[in-house]
Amino acid sequence: MFSLSNPSDWEGYLRSQKEVVEKALDERIPRADRQPKRLHEAIRYSLFAGGKRLRPILCLTTCQTLCGHWEPAIPWACAIECIHTYSLIHDDLPCMDNDDWRRGRPTLHRVFGEAIAILAGDALQALAFEIASSAKGTPRYPVPLLLGELARAAGSRALVGGQVGDLESEGKEVSLTQLRLIHRRKTAALIVVSVRLGAMAADAETWELKQLTRFARFLGVAFQIRDDVLDVTQTQEKLGKTAGKDLQSQKATYPRIVGLAEANRLAALYTHRALEALRPFGERASPWIQLAHHLLERDR
Amino acid sequence: MFSLSNPSDWEGYLRSQKEVVEKALDERIPRADRQPKRLHEAIRYSLFAGGKRLRPILCLTTCQTLCGHWEPAIPWACAIECIHTYSLIHDDLPCMDNDDWRRGRPTLHRVFGEAIAILAGDALQALAFEIASSAKGTPRYPVPLLLGELARAAGSRALVGGQVGDLESEGKEVSLTQLRLIHRRKTAALIVVSVRLGAMAADAETWELKQLTRFARFLGVAFQIRDDVLDVTQTQEKLGKTAGKDLQSQKATYPRIVGLAEANRLAALYTHRALEALRPFGERASPWIQLAHHLLERDR
Repeated sequence: MFSLSNPSDWEGYLRSQKEVVEKALDERIPRADRQPKRLHEAIRYSLFAGGKRLRPILCLTTCQTLCGHWEPAIPWACAIECIHTYSLIHDDLPCMDNDDWRRGRPTLHRVFGEAIAILAGDALQALAFEIASSAKGTPRYPVPLLLGELARAAGSRALVGGQVGDLESEGKEVSLTQLRLIHRRKTAALIVVSVRLGAMAADAETWELKQLTRFARFLGVAFQIRDDVLDVTQTQEKLGKTAGKDLQSQKATYPRIVGLAEANRLAALYTHRALEALRPFGERASPWIQLAHHLLERDR
Repeated sequence: MFSLSNPSDWEGYLRSQKEVVEKALDERIPRADRQPKRLHEAIRYSLFAGGKRLRPILCLTTCQTLCGHWEPAIPWACAIECIHTYSLIHDDLPCMDNDDWRRGRPTLHRVFGEAIAILAGDALQALAFEIASSAKGTPRYPVPLLLGELARAAGSRALVGGQVGDLESEGKEVSLTQLRLIHRRKTAALIVVSVRLGAMAADAETWELKQLTRFARFLGVAFQIRDDVLDVTQTQEKLGKTAGKDLQSQKATYPRIVGLAEANRLAALYTHRALEALRPFGERASPWIQLAHHLLERDR
């Protein structure tokens, strides 16, 4: 696939996977000239704004590492990115986080207005399930099983529930236990399902799915801590979104609750635990190890 | 099942089907004491606000008429009602139709705030697909096929697209052709899919599915014309939502574009066409005929 000892190979791999995701999304999302045009333009404005595509790449890489090709995971990877993008659009709305910048551009509601932003998010969620319904199942894992997992990860006890917790935490004293729960819902659930859907699309064995789920849970938490840290240490230019926003809105974040140094220590600790879960895979674990380092050493 | 010549039997049938829907939804929606409580309270506030359950009843009745029992259609009926309810919540928001009343109660955002209203809608859409993923397929129609249809009916070229068209039409000159397209997307698509999913859950034969689709298309248009007419002829008390709202916001409606008398004539015409599509079913068509009359002679 690529040589892990060579960082430029790894960079090339990430670039090529990102291109696979962009192309697959482009083929599956209605063109901007389809009616209603303004809605499809809005959907594409947000979806093709240069996102890092970390979740779909996690999904594709997991599938490829287990069964040798990423194709079976393509519908799942696209569906996950649609759900991630819709959640960003809605989270950025004035009545939520009220953000003006995202992925280096003005947020969708600033350009298309609030009504279209809400509707574009709604349509992206429906598109996610439309695309997912075109996937092929495997002997162990029929499509409805995977669809159910995706819907739960997007639902009231995971993604949406996490955003509610996030909003409710603003300006309040939040314990580390509560914060961990918010992060598990808001961020980790979608990262876990990215890895699980990739594994199931590859018809993973039971023990593989179990270990990868463990890996993804720790990775998801470490990822969100890193995100919290970047919010206070990086510039808006680097992040492509408003920096220092969490502090300003008094959000519950790791730096705010345990301090910056401890937040960094915890990110490293969870990464370590994530990597431990990969041990039974032996040398096969390399792509996941690389991805974990990539996610946690990123500066945006 | 019931005697069609006896109106009280028919009323009883509708009531019992409504109870089936209420109970099935109640079993499938997280309880109000599940975390995050405020979100689940909001979801239940809107979902159990005394809706007429017309779409799920169409779905169950179609299934029962074709195969003798409605149980296979239960997940689809619940999923459709979740999608319908989420679309009402989002359509009522201040940046959309800015409605204060729905189903006889203050709208969700007036009680829980805009952020929770948006998130409750988002979660209801995810719940719809989670519930749908638990359905059983039939020899002719596997679950992903039905789920894909549901997602398309909820998506950018149907339900959401219709709301965009509706918003864009405000205060503008709209032709009858454009109006018909908006209504087909905004209302008819979900009515068509209600009937189709009920038919497919019953493993309908190809000709049955085709005729019922035709029936539902005309029924959906007639239903929306009736809705437009009720908006100008009924009181808020009767409708449970703000009356005269369409006129006030200069929406594209049948009474506005063709006048009240012509709107009534068109509703009757489309109903007639809907019923014609049922002819090949012979005496079996009775429940659909009753439902069509019920939908079009309603006064709220």
